[in-house]
Amino acid sequence: MSLFFKIQNRDEDTSARTGIIHTAHGDIETPAFIPVGTIATVKTLSPLELKESGAQVVLGNTYHLYQQPGIEVIGAAGGLARFMSWDGPTVTDSGGFQIFSLSTTRKVSEEGVSFRSVYDGAMLKLTPESVLEIQRKIGADFIYALDECTPYPCEHSDVARAVALTSRWASRFIEAWKGTTELSDWFQAAILVVQGGVYEELRKESIEQLAELSPTGFAIGGLSVGEPQAEMIKITGYCCELLPDDKPRHLMGVGTPADMLYAIESGVDLFDCVMPTRNGRNGQAFTSNGIVNIRNAKYILDQEPLDTNCDCYTCRSFTRSYLHHLTVAGELLGLRLMSLHNIAYYLNLMKEARIAICEGRFILWKRHTEDAWREDT
Amino acid sequence: MSLFFKIQNRDEDTSARTGIIHTAHGDIETPAFIPVGTIATVKTLSPLELKESGAQVVLGNTYHLYQQPGIEVIGAAGGLARFMSWDGPTVTDSGGFQIFSLSTTRKVSEEGVSFRSVYDGAMLKLTPESVLEIQRKIGADFIYALDECTPYPCEHSDVARAVALTSRWASRFIEAWKGTTELSDWFQAAILVVQGGVYEELRKESIEQLAELSPTGFAIGGLSVGEPQAEMIKITGYCCELLPDDKPRHLMGVGTPADMLYAIESGVDLFDCVMPTRNGRNGQAFTSNGIVNIRNAKYILDQEPLDTNCDCYTCRSFTRSYLHHLTVAGELLGLRLMSLHNIAYYLNLMKEARIAICEGRFILWKRHTEDAWREDT
Repeated sequence: MSLFFKIQNRDEDTSARTGIIHTAHGDIETPAFIPVGTIATVKTLSPLELKESGAQVVLGNTYHLYQQPGIEVIGAAGGLARFMSWDGPTVTDSGGFQIFSLSTTRKVSEEGVSFRSVYDGAMLKLTPESVLEIQRKIGADFIYALDECTPYPCEHSDVARAVALTSRWASRFIEAWKGTTELSDWFQAAILVVQGGVYEELRKESIEQLAELSPTGFAIGGLSVGEPQAEMIKITGYCCELLPDDKPRHLMGVGTPADMLYAIESGVDLFDCVMPTRNGRNGQAFTSNGIVNIRNAKYILDQEPLDTNCDCYTCRSFTRSYLHHLTVAGELLGLRLMSLHNIAYYLNLMKEARIAICEGRFILWKRHTEDAWREDT
Repeated sequence: MSLFFKIQNRDEDTSARTGIIHTAHGDIETPAFIPVGTIATVKTLSPLELKESGAQVVLGNTYHLYQQPGIEVIGAAGGLARFMSWDGPTVTDSGGFQIFSLSTTRKVSEEGVSFRSVYDGAMLKLTPESVLEIQRKIGADFIYALDECTPYPCEHSDVARAVALTSRWASRFIEAWKGTTELSDWFQAAILVVQGGVYEELRKESIEQLAELSPTGFAIGGLSVGEPQAEMIKITGYCCELLPDDKPRHLMGVGTPADMLYAIESGVDLFDCVMPTRNGRNGQAFTSNGIVNIRNAKYILDQEPLDTNCDCYTCRSFTRSYLHHLTVAGELLGLRLMSLHNIAYYLNLMKEARIAICEGRFILWKRHTEDAWREDT
């Protein structure tokens, strides 16, 4: 069983495309949004709700899973998907982003990176080989190479050094990947993570070096770390021009609905982001008419659904008045219902994008969608 | 439309009985457990999950709803059931229990009771008439008279005074109930709350005085306030012997599965309790083999469901290992899944009791059930 990505439709006016990724646990239609299940749970939501919302694949964070509940626990269950009772493909990132954003005490060497755990303060070390081994045990369908994720802003020389190190780590990761077999009976696709910050020539260097290693797919890392949206769009577009056309591209950690539409236009196939669940827990909903901050007092008596154009359980069943009440009262059902709507909104946006690309009207649909976001604001 | 309670089966060996309560929003088969939806939400659970678990009716707390979100908000939605999107009968208690257990600053007079809000510290006042008016606006199918709930232990003279006051308040409540019509187009049954602490002669006095007022049903209040289980069982049995046979009896705030089986044996028809959801959020599950404290390290690698005899979503889909992980990590999905199982367990226990009574084997079933609880402990 091997991962196979097939492009199905191309937009004539832009670089947008639709495709299908075949995995041992099911197909993924792209462009796709991957809900983030940090420690084997997409916060507040059940796997059944994810399935009913149209989720095709779930992402777990290696950095977190490695520390909680630990790899033996996930291994004993038969891998991440079985552990969390998710009937579909899974993805685990490398942990690079979390090591470089969460752990303040860290030491990067040629061998790997040491860091202080945010869980218990213990010093931990990850290498390209250990990250592979961990992800073999977690058993996701896509696994990611260890990378050095640079912050924003960051000096050119530091980014250049990180790009070179990321390439050498990627080479060791691919070596280890080729030298080992799956612990389970399914193929695990190797994804390499492009770095280079906002420097085009470094992105080019990173892509050229990683492409030589012939991974199953590519991820664009090091964005959504504080750079202006225009920079993110520019660099994403630049990367997509250089990346091999026939392999899937995952823009990591991005983003808002607007960010995703720009990236789809550039030819990105996969997204993951905590925004729909995190913002949902904070009372913020993404809707077809823009942002709704449900804590706002104007919703106290509002008998309308959160989004009149949405067919999710939250919008089918509850009023803004009720959601306002639950959120203000800090009731857990409120966190759930807001998260559920946001995830459904993100997944539906991807579905609409796929249909629009198929039907050759992506740019028109994108403009219409963006205009509607501004209606209420 | 009028509330009608019909007894269907009687156990030959005990006072247990099955029945049906007809309401404008559906029938309730008794004995029934009523999940507690304090401020219009059964904590962590959706109305859909309640329905799928077999819930027939939901209880809201007048004391809490009055303060959050407030009666106008619930009224604007068309009543409690519509506000929370619960497609079935609802019940609201009088607030008496909360006033006397939550609010430390309170002043009882003939007119009513003043107390300091636990929400914002404001001084509030409730009278038998205002409690009726509030519950008319909330629009539940059963509404409860204001009562003075005595603590445990409590002097005989204080309990006697509370019984007398509760009867005078009940009379004013029934007066107001008869003198007003429903704001909505459905019948609201008037339930009077028996007091009397652990003193049999005071319970008798309370029941005789309340029965003269011919309410639609009775509640047994003032238990589950700290008295020994044996006292609770004794007083419940005593009350059931004296209460009119043909009206439904609600044992308020009770209890553990064991408490409920004893009470069913005495002839109780309705129960409500926060225990399944509260204990679930604390990592404690009620199962057919007794209590499971899922935080216990022995469950770290346990691949069995919480309860092998349970058919709820939690038990169908997840292992103890996963539930242990979620609970230890404080993940909201863990609170949900544990609450969901406990509610399903309580509801299923009632269903089994009804079937056992119908089939004339209640005592055998009760013994078998109790024995199984002790198996693992």
